[in-house]
Amino acid sequence: MRVLFFGDIVGRAGRDALMARLPGLMTELQPDFIVVNAENAAGGFGLTQEIASDLFKAGVDCLTLGNHSWDQRTLLTQIDAEPRILRPINYPPGTPGRGAQVYTKGGKKLLVVNVMGRLFMDPLDDPFRTVDAELAKHRLGGSVDGILIDVHAEASSEKMALGYHLDGRVSFVVGTHTHVPSADGRILPKGTAYQTDAGMCGDYNSIIGMKAEPAVARFVRKLPGERLTPAEGDGTICGALVTLGANGLAESIRPVRRGPGLLEA
Amino acid sequence: MRVLFFGDIVGRAGRDALMARLPGLMTELQPDFIVVNAENAAGGFGLTQEIASDLFKAGVDCLTLGNHSWDQRTLLTQIDAEPRILRPINYPPGTPGRGAQVYTKGGKKLLVVNVMGRLFMDPLDDPFRTVDAELAKHRLGGSVDGILIDVHAEASSEKMALGYHLDGRVSFVVGTHTHVPSADGRILPKGTAYQTDAGMCGDYNSIIGMKAEPAVARFVRKLPGERLTPAEGDGTICGALVTLGANGLAESIRPVRRGPGLLEA
Amino acid sequence: MRVLFFGDIVGRAGRDALMARLPGLMTELQPDFIVVNAENAAGGFGLTQEIASDLFKAGVDCLTLGNHSWDQRTLLTQIDAEPRILRPINYPPGTPGRGAQVYTKGGKKLLVVNVMGRLFMDPLDDPFRTVDAELAKHRLGGSVDGILIDVHAEASSEKMALGYHLDGRVSFVVGTHTHVPSADGRILPKGTAYQTDAGMCGDYNSIIGMKAEPAVARFVRKLPGERLTPAEGDGTICGALVTLGANGLAESIRPVRRGPGLLEA
Amino acid sequence: MRVLFFGDIVGRAGRDALMARLPGLMTELQPDFIVVNAENAAGGFGLTQEIASDLFKAGVDCLTLGNHSWDQRTLLTQIDAEPRILRPINYPPGTPGRGAQVYTKGGKKLLVVNVMGRLFMDPLDDPFRTVDAELAKHRLGGSVDGILIDVHAEASSEKMALGYHLDGRVSFVVGTHTHVPSADGRILPKGTAYQTDAGMCGDYNSIIGMKAEPAVARFVRKLPGERLTPAEGDGTICGALVTLGANGLAESIRPVRRGPGLLEA
Ligand SMILES: [Fe+2]
Ligand SMILES: [Fe+2]
Ligand SMILES: [Fe+2]
Ligand SMILES: [Fe+2]
Ligand SMILES: [Fe+2]
Ligand SMILES: [Fe+2]
Ligand SMILES: [Fe+2]
Ligand SMILES: [Fe+2]
Repeated sequence: MRVLFFGDIVGRAGRDALMARLPGLMTELQPDFIVVNAENAAGGFGLTQEIASDLFKAGVDCLTLGNHSWDQRTLLTQIDAEPRILRPINYPPGTPGRGAQVYTKGGKKLLVVNVMGRLFMDPLDDPFRTVDAELAKHRLGGSVDGILIDVHAEASSEKMALGYHLDGRVSFVVGTHTHVPSADGRILPKGTAYQTDAGMCGDYNSIIGMKAEPAVARFVRKLPGERLTPAEGDGTICGALVTLGANGLAESIRPVRRGPGLLEA
Repeated sequence: MRVLFFGDIVGRAGRDALMARLPGLMTELQPDFIVVNAENAAGGFGLTQEIASDLFKAGVDCLTLGNHSWDQRTLLTQIDAEPRILRPINYPPGTPGRGAQVYTKGGKKLLVVNVMGRLFMDPLDDPFRTVDAELAKHRLGGSVDGILIDVHAEASSEKMALGYHLDGRVSFVVGTHTHVPSADGRILPKGTAYQTDAGMCGDYNSIIGMKAEPAVARFVRKLPGERLTPAEGDGTICGALVTLGANGLAESIRPVRRGPGLLEA
Repeated sequence: MRVLFFGDIVGRAGRDALMARLPGLMTELQPDFIVVNAENAAGGFGLTQEIASDLFKAGVDCLTLGNHSWDQRTLLTQIDAEPRILRPINYPPGTPGRGAQVYTKGGKKLLVVNVMGRLFMDPLDDPFRTVDAELAKHRLGGSVDGILIDVHAEASSEKMALGYHLDGRVSFVVGTHTHVPSADGRILPKGTAYQTDAGMCGDYNSIIGMKAEPAVARFVRKLPGERLTPAEGDGTICGALVTLGANGLAESIRPVRRGPGLLEA
Repeated sequence: MRVLFFGDIVGRAGRDALMARLPGLMTELQPDFIVVNAENAAGGFGLTQEIASDLFKAGVDCLTLGNHSWDQRTLLTQIDAEPRILRPINYPPGTPGRGAQVYTKGGKKLLVVNVMGRLFMDPLDDPFRTVDAELAKHRLGGSVDGILIDVHAEASSEKMALGYHLDGRVSFVVGTHTHVPSADGRILPKGTAYQTDAGMCGDYNSIIGMKAEPAVARFVRKLPGERLTPAEGDGTICGALVTLGANGLAESIRPVRRGPGLLEA
């Protein structure tokens, strides 16, 4: 089985770049499932059902979120009816939406879990125990053919700790949130593919996808300023392709980076 | 001019890997200067003069530090006498050592500055203004042929903001501290090479260079445990090579990753 | 019922002051139960069984802890056998010790819960839900005559939020950890007594109980320095006395501050 | 000389309570100067020139701010023309307004400095060095008769550290920001009056001055909710009165708490 993942879509530049390249990538990489983090898809802040629908039509199977899940408030009332959108599973009970879902396609089943880290972030429920509890309901290579965990977190140490904690029990642990692709894709000792951050889909001539000048000013001047808005140059998409064996563990991981600015892969 | 930079050396695995590969890399890449972050070189915590001397003998021109600068207290009394070791420039006045230094070699001059970010880190002096003040003493392409800034910081946004803030005024802004190589090396619009993180030199079968099990336990159990110690498998070195034009701005940047675990580059 | 609570004992100055004044206070205030936070009782860091035993002999019924719970490692193996010591209830499952306990004395039953906040602190389990789950096992004015919650937290907003969240369901929500007595003891609208921080028991000619000079130096110099040690002048004890009605809700709250330096109450 | 200080005014409840009580307090306490922190005076967020003018008319000599300084953007353009409003002195150079000012009244001169802490807050310039630099321009008991420092900070340790750092060099170090009055007013060994937090002027039947229900919900539900708004019950004012000797050091400090809810003083 082949699973293709892309990191945080930031604004129109990211959406356009992803939509434009998906048809070619589907031919080239033959993914069974496409999962994309979309927490910044709507003007850099959150996700709307309209944008989600466009992405689903383009071939995306599941959209994950993060700390920007609810920046577009309309999603709060729509997410329960949309099983293809996941918000972090470790929000408190009663939070709209779901944090894990099994997707079935072409006879194959993929469990996707979206979870948020806590180091330097909002103190949600324990990501380690929450994911463990979800995994207890499934069997990799049995009830599901693959398991992908999107760890939306700031600290590399926490992401790696979750990677090792889950090693041998899931197919792929991939980080999001820093908006920077890491060049550390690898297979951990017990067979789980791991990459600290998928990187963003957006205009890399920017500060994490947002126009540079106001973002710099925030650090330098410490004054309330213009609202940050997404950079509008050509977008580059960043992610990874993982191939799984029959047991659901990873056989390979390779980066996928397409577009201007970065070294393509 | 060609400048080779490597990220945080973590313990013996990182030191051994770097020392073993430096001779070959010096032949292959022909760097004019080699700068390495060494804040975790001594058992994962800090740097000693002995380790520094070994690295200088192996061809390193300058060692930078970070939030672990003083983990080995002996360095506090030795650093003033060793201009090849830099600690973050934005420590308060009166801090031992220096945060910037011009190195001369083969008729070329390289200014290196080590600076620490403040987002999710200790609140030192403003990194933007402190670096600006240092740069006011030099002229890129004039008094110095190149300027390298090691931004030791947690948040990708702060590193990028410093990159854009310094774009066109320095040769290379490279991040350290996350211990994860980023695949976003690029040249910013006004000619400064930029990479969010160089990555570490150490055993990547680990959690940011430290043995995985106790590091995972810290997140899961929230109990005081055994002290973290560096992983001891074969090390991989991560960094970047930047070539500069006569004006001191960047003409190219390419990743350098050698060793097991990661995709080599 | 009358419940007397004192905040964080810091070192010998705090222990001596409390032990010296307890006999008089027991006569004067006639408390049915005495509960004391002791997370800094042992040299400023943690608690030992020996110190705990001395405090129990002096009349203390229950000792609570906080983020310094395990600074003295020996407590980790002793706490399971000592039901009079509580550590924060929102540590993960499997943590030694307990976070809540019913104490019976003179025919009266007091439930004490120790819980830690998460704002600016280690991200433990949700304090709101964890306390709710514990309260579900008891009935105020029924199975227990009183309920005291020690909220060990940094942010005043989080402490107050827990106070209002529990208003009408517990007898007394009292904060600890800042080592500063707050002058905001009051009874919330539904009958729960509340005080943001009890204050510490220790030498107030100090920085939160520790000698001033090295504590100032840490802020000013940003260098590793001498270990902080408790100030050794005469201690002042700070806490509050709450009286409860038959329904377990509060009828009154008054501060108790005795010793040099502060305005006594 | 007698200096009266009140902590963060929160919304209309705080403004009304302070304005209503000031005439009586001026008769009763005979202050030479009245200084008030007003960072939450305008609907809980920031300050407007209109509100400031009302407070000046009521007898206030100086208004200080904090992390909410610019919540009302209009102040950014007005503050330069209003020397009676101070924003934290450790904002970067170029920030509108001023952080220190000498006020002259009845032949007496009072220097007021507003400074922000950095622990758990925005990393501004070093508060210790910034205040030292300001103090170098004045002489207590010489060029000025008194010096008041409003330390707007979260952590009690940082406030106390600044207190001891300035002990003997200023008249009064008083904290703001937590919105909780501390009962630790005292005179430090070298003659500086110190109180960790003045407390707020506002409705104490609230969570730090804001309506309780939405504030609790933020902690419990982790969802974006209604904007926080100030509680609207009767306000209580909290502060301290300090008397100074001819040398500008403190002779006494006493709390001033007036209004419902809290123990009056
Ligand atoms: Fe994002
Ligand atoms: Fe995010
Ligand atoms: Fe570091
Ligand atoms: Fe490091
Ligand atoms: Fe404490
Ligand atoms: Fe504590
Ligand atoms: Fe405030
Ligand atoms: Fe504030």
